[in-house]
Amino acid sequence: MNSFVYDIPVKVYFGENQLCHLGAELSRYGKRVLLTYGGGSIKKIGLYDAVMDEVKKAGLEVFELSGIEPNPRIDSVRQGAQICKDEKIDVLLAVGGGSTIDATKWMAAGACVDFDPWEFFSRWAPVEKALPIVTVLTLSATGSEMDAGGVISNPETKDKIGRMASPLLPKVSFLDPSNTYTVSPYQTACGAADMMSHIMEVYFNMSQDLFMLDCFMEGMMRTIIRYTPIAMKDPTNYEARANLMWTSSWAINGFVNGGKQQAWSCHPMEHELSAIYDITHGLGLAILTPRWLEYCLDETTVSKYVQFGVNVFGIDANQEPMAIAKQSIEKLSEFLFDVLGLKRTFTEVGIRVEDFPVMARKACGGDVLQGFKPIAQSDIEEIFKMCL
Amino acid sequence: MNSFVYDIPVKVYFGENQLCHLGAELSRYGKRVLLTYGGGSIKKIGLYDAVMDEVKKAGLEVFELSGIEPNPRIDSVRQGAQICKDEKIDVLLAVGGGSTIDATKWMAAGACVDFDPWEFFSRWAPVEKALPIVTVLTLSATGSEMDAGGVISNPETKDKIGRMASPLLPKVSFLDPSNTYTVSPYQTACGAADMMSHIMEVYFNMSQDLFMLDCFMEGMMRTIIRYTPIAMKDPTNYEARANLMWTSSWAINGFVNGGKQQAWSCHPMEHELSAIYDITHGLGLAILTPRWLEYCLDETTVSKYVQFGVNVFGIDANQEPMAIAKQSIEKLSEFLFDVLGLKRTFTEVGIRVEDFPVMARKACGGDVLQGFKPIAQSDIEEIFKMCL
Repeated sequence: MNSFVYDIPVKVYFGENQLCHLGAELSRYGKRVLLTYGGGSIKKIGLYDAVMDEVKKAGLEVFELSGIEPNPRIDSVRQGAQICKDEKIDVLLAVGGGSTIDATKWMAAGACVDFDPWEFFSRWAPVEKALPIVTVLTLSATGSEMDAGGVISNPETKDKIGRMASPLLPKVSFLDPSNTYTVSPYQTACGAADMMSHIMEVYFNMSQDLFMLDCFMEGMMRTIIRYTPIAMKDPTNYEARANLMWTSSWAINGFVNGGKQQAWSCHPMEHELSAIYDITHGLGLAILTPRWLEYCLDETTVSKYVQFGVNVFGIDANQEPMAIAKQSIEKLSEFLFDVLGLKRTFTEVGIRVEDFPVMARKACGGDVLQGFKPIAQSDIEEIFKMCL
Repeated sequence: MNSFVYDIPVKVYFGENQLCHLGAELSRYGKRVLLTYGGGSIKKIGLYDAVMDEVKKAGLEVFELSGIEPNPRIDSVRQGAQICKDEKIDVLLAVGGGSTIDATKWMAAGACVDFDPWEFFSRWAPVEKALPIVTVLTLSATGSEMDAGGVISNPETKDKIGRMASPLLPKVSFLDPSNTYTVSPYQTACGAADMMSHIMEVYFNMSQDLFMLDCFMEGMMRTIIRYTPIAMKDPTNYEARANLMWTSSWAINGFVNGGKQQAWSCHPMEHELSAIYDITHGLGLAILTPRWLEYCLDETTVSKYVQFGVNVFGIDANQEPMAIAKQSIEKLSEFLFDVLGLKRTFTEVGIRVEDFPVMARKACGGDVLQGFKPIAQSDIEEIFKMCL
């Protein structure tokens, strides 16, 4: 069992009617705020006005950068970083989902350096500091509101790269489940698939770690399975939205990792899909995850599948391990494709075989991905073929 | 479902070989350190020397206060606060279990005020600030290493009072499971009973809150049930000690509360026992908890017992709710008294009927404890009688 450091000092205001604290929290970091958001859905739901009210009540000066795209691009990051420099911004306020928050994190880092922010990814330039970040979350999925990572796409190089750095951790996040009431059933499903994957990337691991954390991960997976269909059918169900929102944060803030050290598998593979095809991240993960589990299942890994099947899906434990393992993959597929209604193949979403070699090579960096099972380019191509 | 604020910025170094970070962490707060500890067991296990090595390597000046007692007393707090003032201490380093850490927290607060520290309890004087606190934990039980509370006894007034205040939250805690290898089976059992109670005080609650957090609490209870007997039989089992240690912190750091607002029941009752009889806190809780559950069981509360019994003890769900509920209490008693071997009655530990009225009155402050079920003095006396 490895040692580890736990250090997640993000303050969270969870629930309705908490936005009254926004002005005071922002004011701790200064007077000049860059508000970032996406395509304007925050205006439709009245959140933009509510945020502006609070910010103005606190006497802050607000600059704006809107139009941050899903799978956010390096150009948005460049633009935001430049505004921070030009306007001497003190604190960034991201209002949106993971894309907006991810992009905002890298703007905050870009504001503190002299070089092009893409160098954080192209040459892994050090992230020594970042401006403070406050978030108001509108989508339960990526967990960006409580972690130190962000994924940025570069359409020119067809790269989509994620990176963590502790200065990017938000100082404060506002998590109001009612801000997700207008999230469509499809986006709710994609968010759920993303969260499931965040947990499974860590849970499926053969190195010994804390049983307590396995219990937590199983509990979060049961929470997602229980509440996603409810939120899809009854979008203003507070209980469902609240459980999904708090789960999204804890699935990936690093707590459940404990001392486990293992590369992720499905996320690097999926990033290559959405780098080329710009499909929704959660959808790509949903297609990949059950096939990846099939590919990794053997006598050395079967015990983890058994634990998963019995504790998450309630599969009868009195069967052969391999039978339980296979049922657990079936149950997961049922959840993703039948219950959530996500597409189950690359063919259905238009991902073509001819791109497999380059996507597979990039996914593993031309080397071996040291994940649940080590996978090299040929393994990844094989998994891609299983997704057709 | 109530809104809530999550704010637990404690940094934790978990695992072996982490003490090398102690000097750097202390140095962030200054040069003058007050080292606090209990009866000297940290010398026997070599921890005192290891800590001193690190502190000296970092060039810090160390002052010492040892002899902090179990159920720590206000006199120790007074003494520590005075040393902080006299020696211009920058940071306090508590090395020990919950008693040492609790006392150290109140020294850190007492160092910042002109009045007697007992006034924090007698007249609820405001806790506006405290010196920074770093802890090195040697006992998995109270969770003081990651929460903002501390319980202090006053033998003169026969009071034992707990209070939370955010300035008391440790900045950094070092949790090395191997530092608990020498904890006796009996103290390991008492610690487990304390942790179980911390969880059950929150879990047994009829107000609607996050399902996800119920899953976490059930996972922690299963962790305690699984690993306490192992740690008692095989005291140097790292896996068992590690699971118990991380559970002790998360059982009570406030995370699992979510938006639940409810007074605790068994802790206030137990504090009155140990205020008079100086028995081990966990032992008192072990005796009280199953009787309290019996007392609170009725048609309005039974569903929570069913959830507990099925999800924590694996009781067959296909039975009458009341039957499952009763079995769940039996299973808990079996765990506490048969598996852990704790004494099961007041009679066995010498707690006398004649003290019931005054203990019961103090436990509820002469009013009604608004816990899982509201209980007044007469209810508490009844529960005490069930413990005979």
